[in-house]
Amino acid sequence: MYRNYTCGELRLAHVGQEPVLAGWVQTIRNLGAMTFIDIRDRYGITQLVADENTSVELKEQFDKLGREYVIQVKGVVRERSSKNTKIPTGEIEVDIEELTILNKAVLPPFTIQDDTDGGDELRMKFRYLDLRREVVRKNLELRARMAHIIRNYLDELQFIETETPVLMKSTPEGARDFVVPSRMNPNQFYALPQSPQIFKQLLMVAGFDRYYQIVKCFRDEDLRADRQPEFTQIDCEMSFVEQEDVLNMFEGLARHMFKQIKGIDPGEFPRMTWADAMENYGSDKPDIRFGMKFKNLTEVIKGKDFKVFDEAEYIVGICAPGCGEYTRKQLDALTEFVKRPQVGAKGLVYAKVNDDGTVKSSVDKFYSQEELAKWVAIFEAKPGDLMLIISGERTRALSALSVLRLEMGRQCGLTDKENFKPLWVIDFPLLEWDEDSARFYAMHHPFTAPIPADIPLLDSDAGKVRANAYDLVINGVEIGGGSVRIHDSELQAKMFKTLGFTKQEAENQFGFLMEAFKYGAPPHAGIALGFDRLVSMLAGLDSIRDVIAFPKNNSGRDVMNDAPSEIAQAQLDELCLSLVTPKSKG
Amino acid sequence: MYRNYTCGELRLAHVGQEPVLAGWVQTIRNLGAMTFIDIRDRYGITQLVADENTSVELKEQFDKLGREYVIQVKGVVRERSSKNTKIPTGEIEVDIEELTILNKAVLPPFTIQDDTDGGDELRMKFRYLDLRREVVRKNLELRARMAHIIRNYLDELQFIETETPVLMKSTPEGARDFVVPSRMNPNQFYALPQSPQIFKQLLMVAGFDRYYQIVKCFRDEDLRADRQPEFTQIDCEMSFVEQEDVLNMFEGLARHMFKQIKGIDPGEFPRMTWADAMENYGSDKPDIRFGMKFKNLTEVIKGKDFKVFDEAEYIVGICAPGCGEYTRKQLDALTEFVKRPQVGAKGLVYAKVNDDGTVKSSVDKFYSQEELAKWVAIFEAKPGDLMLIISGERTRALSALSVLRLEMGRQCGLTDKENFKPLWVIDFPLLEWDEDSARFYAMHHPFTAPIPADIPLLDSDAGKVRANAYDLVINGVEIGGGSVRIHDSELQAKMFKTLGFTKQEAENQFGFLMEAFKYGAPPHAGIALGFDRLVSMLAGLDSIRDVIAFPKNNSGRDVMNDAPSEIAQAQLDELCLSLVTPKSKG
Repeated sequence: MYRNYTCGELRLAHVGQEPVLAGWVQTIRNLGAMTFIDIRDRYGITQLVADENTSVELKEQFDKLGREYVIQVKGVVRERSSKNTKIPTGEIEVDIEELTILNKAVLPPFTIQDDTDGGDELRMKFRYLDLRREVVRKNLELRARMAHIIRNYLDELQFIETETPVLMKSTPEGARDFVVPSRMNPNQFYALPQSPQIFKQLLMVAGFDRYYQIVKCFRDEDLRADRQPEFTQIDCEMSFVEQEDVLNMFEGLARHMFKQIKGIDPGEFPRMTWADAMENYGSDKPDIRFGMKFKNLTEVIKGKDFKVFDEAEYIVGICAPGCGEYTRKQLDALTEFVKRPQVGAKGLVYAKVNDDGTVKSSVDKFYSQEELAKWVAIFEAKPGDLMLIISGERTRALSALSVLRLEMGRQCGLTDKENFKPLWVIDFPLLEWDEDSARFYAMHHPFTAPIPADIPLLDSDAGKVRANAYDLVINGVEIGGGSVRIHDSELQAKMFKTLGFTKQEAENQFGFLMEAFKYGAPPHAGIALGFDRLVSMLAGLDSIRDVIAFPKNNSGRDVMNDAPSEIAQAQLDELCLSLVTPKSKG
Repeated sequence: MYRNYTCGELRLAHVGQEPVLAGWVQTIRNLGAMTFIDIRDRYGITQLVADENTSVELKEQFDKLGREYVIQVKGVVRERSSKNTKIPTGEIEVDIEELTILNKAVLPPFTIQDDTDGGDELRMKFRYLDLRREVVRKNLELRARMAHIIRNYLDELQFIETETPVLMKSTPEGARDFVVPSRMNPNQFYALPQSPQIFKQLLMVAGFDRYYQIVKCFRDEDLRADRQPEFTQIDCEMSFVEQEDVLNMFEGLARHMFKQIKGIDPGEFPRMTWADAMENYGSDKPDIRFGMKFKNLTEVIKGKDFKVFDEAEYIVGICAPGCGEYTRKQLDALTEFVKRPQVGAKGLVYAKVNDDGTVKSSVDKFYSQEELAKWVAIFEAKPGDLMLIISGERTRALSALSVLRLEMGRQCGLTDKENFKPLWVIDFPLLEWDEDSARFYAMHHPFTAPIPADIPLLDSDAGKVRANAYDLVINGVEIGGGSVRIHDSELQAKMFKTLGFTKQEAENQFGFLMEAFKYGAPPHAGIALGFDRLVSMLAGLDSIRDVIAFPKNNSGRDVMNDAPSEIAQAQLDELCLSLVTPKSKG
């Protein structure tokens, strides 16, 4: 027996008892007559103490100890004279009677405490030490708790948790699939799933009715800041349901989660069409923790000889409350901010509302106070507010203002991480026109159903057809999305035709699922939520990396154990593969 | 809304209500005046009925229906005149008022019922239809339920469910790893985990204390009857524990599982040393549902001029109760059975105990009744029993008799699938001597700790050292196993030395984990249970394939969607790989 109590367990009620504890040495303080050792495990920290009554032999042992040594101690619990109210064990200490060093430790490359001195890179390399820090481990504990809550919720509602294959079929268009060469089937490859989409739809054909899985998915794409080559989805599918049923089901799950984890009820989730989201927030994932809704000025503001506006396709602005005091320097910084290539505006027009109701703008040359008063009316601006206006090509102006709006939200302190504002974005466009190839592409995937009322438009004005699809957005982050699927083969055929597939092409790429659908596919719909992202949001973190035990870096590398790596020639031979020297990228 | 009741829900209490149901057409019986349609979903079957009061228009609809059509019906619940007590909805039927065909279905290639007419291959190809059959779906539902029970049990005991990477480092000796070429790191490969062994040990170094995961693992080996290239493990690790703690923890889990799923308590699991298991059952995974323990006759039975015995290294037998009536033909069949190459015995000696206590044996020429009476005493055989004896090289004789014993258990009807007899097999040998390379190999892996008392033997008689390892065996099937790990670097160094590794070789292969251990590794131990196997055992099935939603065949192929398959040249180019023509196996 290594221990009979954990290091987070002892309280005043245990005074006089003789526990055995095991854990890591957090700190050693030798004060001459007294020595204090903090022993740490996952459950907490207990103070060990030795004083003038402690034997010399035992004291000599202390000299051998160092930080992060693994020790076992036996002692007597006693009440502390000077209590620490910050930790649950702070009222007691353990008078050491026996000490065993279970394992030595070399000095860790950074301190094992919440405010560590270790930099990002070092902590990634020694991830197993970083995980010792309570702030990091708590994120993983939260992840486990959330998975548990989700499973219990869905199990209760008769969803069948079903594992789908990791080694699946590579699809022709799946250039971003990770592939796995098969030794038993030489020159053939499995693919790792980007999602279990096909399998979950097959499970509906199989009559499983309600399916879920918390499942690893894989995408071999160039990694942006917050992407991982392997990531975890809460993947769900339901039969005999319409959009309304799916939204209600998963709104229920999300609200349950907020209640359990955060003790809050964010209330009914508002629903916003994609068109409204774009119009009012310039984004399909609006952050509605704050207002600053877009005002379209295109029709109102032209014709005053200000060339920039007069020539603009679209003119749009927001009103930042209380930012009228911004200095010239701050305003210049905002202009620079929107002109960065990743934001892409050509410039920024501002107009402050003074205390007396007059307006000071960057375009006073062109706009009289009378004209500016119209702006104030449109923005419903108040004295002390700042109006910010961007113009140009519509999509670009909306997108640039969307980024600026988020920045202003941040600067105004309106993006409290503990304020959760979820919403559903619905009625996405079904199709996207691609100028280059002069054809439509499916916005989601070709099995996404159109909104029934829009089906006739498929023949006449396909670009206007809305998808029966939905995204769950929280605080400006897309947590997940899904759609009602097409289950009718005639509609599916029409869809393929609209997408410019020949029958043969459709057959080649999707024939397998189409074949399955012939045997009686029920109406079905589903959703997939990004679990990493959901956890990181509830943990109040900016990156999903912090909620993954062993994440990879932006090059898809595990810097801790240096993967990927070369493999032996013998193994390549067995797989009937040979390496090709990569072309230099210079 | 597609439905407001499922097809398994309506009872007498609902009579008079007007439900909407949706599901698949199971059967249509047109009896002239009356038409009965059974509608099926995952939850059950409801009988729909139309009679003389049904409108002509509606009746015409029926003619369009076929088996497995997906329909929606509205109707009135009424009490059946002729009740079906075999199904929960058997007291009612629904008088059809409206019928909508939600989807047509072509005739399935086999019938969707428990006793289907479909052969194995056809059912695998159309797995999504096979899964419609209740007997098949029930297995997957059991799987989900068991996963749920396991997670709740372990969560309750503060195990942290932690996801470990699927894309991990390929290890030099891992010739049977599946590998994944990295596009972003050309000519480098990830490996899919054969187990999360290294990661779970790192989590113990990280102080996670208790870890579990129900996790996919991968092994690119030639598939035997009941292996899959991807399989699921219940993977666990604990810190500050000894063998006893791990056995108690997971015996608790297994008993809880039996209680929940089967409503039985198999009682405390016996523990059997590997040496005893081999001696008494010829197997490290003995089926203890029945006796027929081995009797070692080597010292007793020689010297009667029967050359086969006199020259044998080992002579061992079992007594099959009540098999004394076996005919010559049956006995010959048993002889043929043990002489098959996969059993490997040279022959079989039998001896029947007659009702009068005399013995009739196949070696009467060499053994007198007096000698045979000694056999009876050793076997504690009773009139009507059959003694079966195999001789030869010890390991081979034990192994052959082990197979025969299982066959006799089966023939005697002693292998009831609903009789569960778990046990722990412990004290495995730590090392295995390989004659060819004249060196020891680790039986499990090189991190398995020796039994403390045997550590001194590492220097003097390493082959005798027992491992601190354990297997959970149920009804002759190895459900899983684990070990206490070495956490002490000196002991680990000694272990590597015994295994004939140079320091450099040990460093190359295991340096990464050894490095982590330097920072304070706690004593730790773990276990991994084969989830597929455990489910298939509790489902009373012989194959794990039946508890996997989309299994692969013995060549590692998914015959349903034809994976693995070729990939495009462009994709190979991007991965910096080229194919090598496989060498002909002829």
